[in-house]
Amino acid sequence: MGSEETQKKAVVLVSGGLDSSTVLAIAKNNGYECFTLSFDYGQRHRSELVAAKRISKAIGSREHKVVVLDLTAIGGSALTDTSIPVPESEGQGIPITYVPARNTIFLSIALGWAEVLGAHDIFVGVNAVDYSGYPDCRPEYITAFEAMANLATRASVEGRRLTVQTPLINLTKAEIIQWGTQLGLDYGASVSCYQASSDGLACGRCESCRLRRQGFEMARLSDPTAYQK
Amino acid sequence: MGSEETQKKAVVLVSGGLDSSTVLAIAKNNGYECFTLSFDYGQRHRSELVAAKRISKAIGSREHKVVVLDLTAIGGSALTDTSIPVPESEGQGIPITYVPARNTIFLSIALGWAEVLGAHDIFVGVNAVDYSGYPDCRPEYITAFEAMANLATRASVEGRRLTVQTPLINLTKAEIIQWGTQLGLDYGASVSCYQASSDGLACGRCESCRLRRQGFEMARLSDPTAYQK
Repeated sequence: MGSEETQKKAVVLVSGGLDSSTVLAIAKNNGYECFTLSFDYGQRHRSELVAAKRISKAIGSREHKVVVLDLTAIGGSALTDTSIPVPESEGQGIPITYVPARNTIFLSIALGWAEVLGAHDIFVGVNAVDYSGYPDCRPEYITAFEAMANLATRASVEGRRLTVQTPLINLTKAEIIQWGTQLGLDYGASVSCYQASSDGLACGRCESCRLRRQGFEMARLSDPTAYQK
Repeated sequence: MGSEETQKKAVVLVSGGLDSSTVLAIAKNNGYECFTLSFDYGQRHRSELVAAKRISKAIGSREHKVVVLDLTAIGGSALTDTSIPVPESEGQGIPITYVPARNTIFLSIALGWAEVLGAHDIFVGVNAVDYSGYPDCRPEYITAFEAMANLATRASVEGRRLTVQTPLINLTKAEIIQWGTQLGLDYGASVSCYQASSDGLACGRCESCRLRRQGFEMARLSDPTAYQK
């Protein structure tokens, strides 16, 4: 890790869930000075913000920022519109838990903060394996975002290139968990459930819980998740 | 204009200023059912939100939405960081009134709403003539955003194409004012000033006021702007 002057800065999107916690551990392990960014966007699973703060502190974020952004004004997803129930399993096609343009919105705000900080890297835990139904988790989307970002900012005009790093994009949940575990990450601090209780207990039934539980099984590691009774 | 069933929908970004008011009048005149979007992002010039509402109503927006998004958390601009003064004239390079990644953030949220509405067009009043110093007002940036947007959403997966319409991008302020005037727009309802008073009176001195005043002069039209004494 370099000195304060030379250490590379990165903005890391952290949701409090398993994937983004792993990404933060990876960025930190790669020598970045990490600035973590979360959103209070009207999500049902508000305990994820508590988890995001806990994990930022545990892994050593230089600064954790929570940006307030009312996506319930737009609606269109089971995660932001309380009139749409969270399904226990998703059908074919794009899931109802998909929040319209969420990754684009979050990455855009990360881009703004990166510009203010002079950071040239944004880390995000998108995954094209488990979330193959989400258009904004595909590698070609990330490439297009990066191309846009490299025309959008002061840095781009001045010749500095911004990179969107997606270390998990092609990994299975089990591979993600194995990597994080090797880096010493305590997954008990993370909350993945779409409808976790206010104290962070997982429902154990939603799609996100199911993928997470299977991940620990496939990784042959014990599942530290605290489930509701 | 088509029937309710067939009328094309558009999301129009409205700031309450001269350019976006003109864009709304253009979209409306082109037969779109317009949904206007503004942001309460911690801007100094809050009277622009009042103007955005007034203009949305005057021109006939189907729905005007104000999304709360605290960009002061990120800072980095004279428009969102009260510790940075608004200059009376800008020097060379990227102006201090540039808000990092603002257009990207606003367009991303417009993209989310467009997806929820089933709109395939987003109208935005970016201009590469007066705002040549702003990286996110350049045509190549808009093209890149559109390419990204067409990979980001449910609509893109289902084969529907999203277009970002920028009718003002290559026009001078005088040409913009002439177009809006032809469409019957009352520019007295719009507020362009970076530091307008709470009742919408313009300072007459900032860069935005200067460009606006010159525009009316060049267009040989009387300036309806209400200035501070």
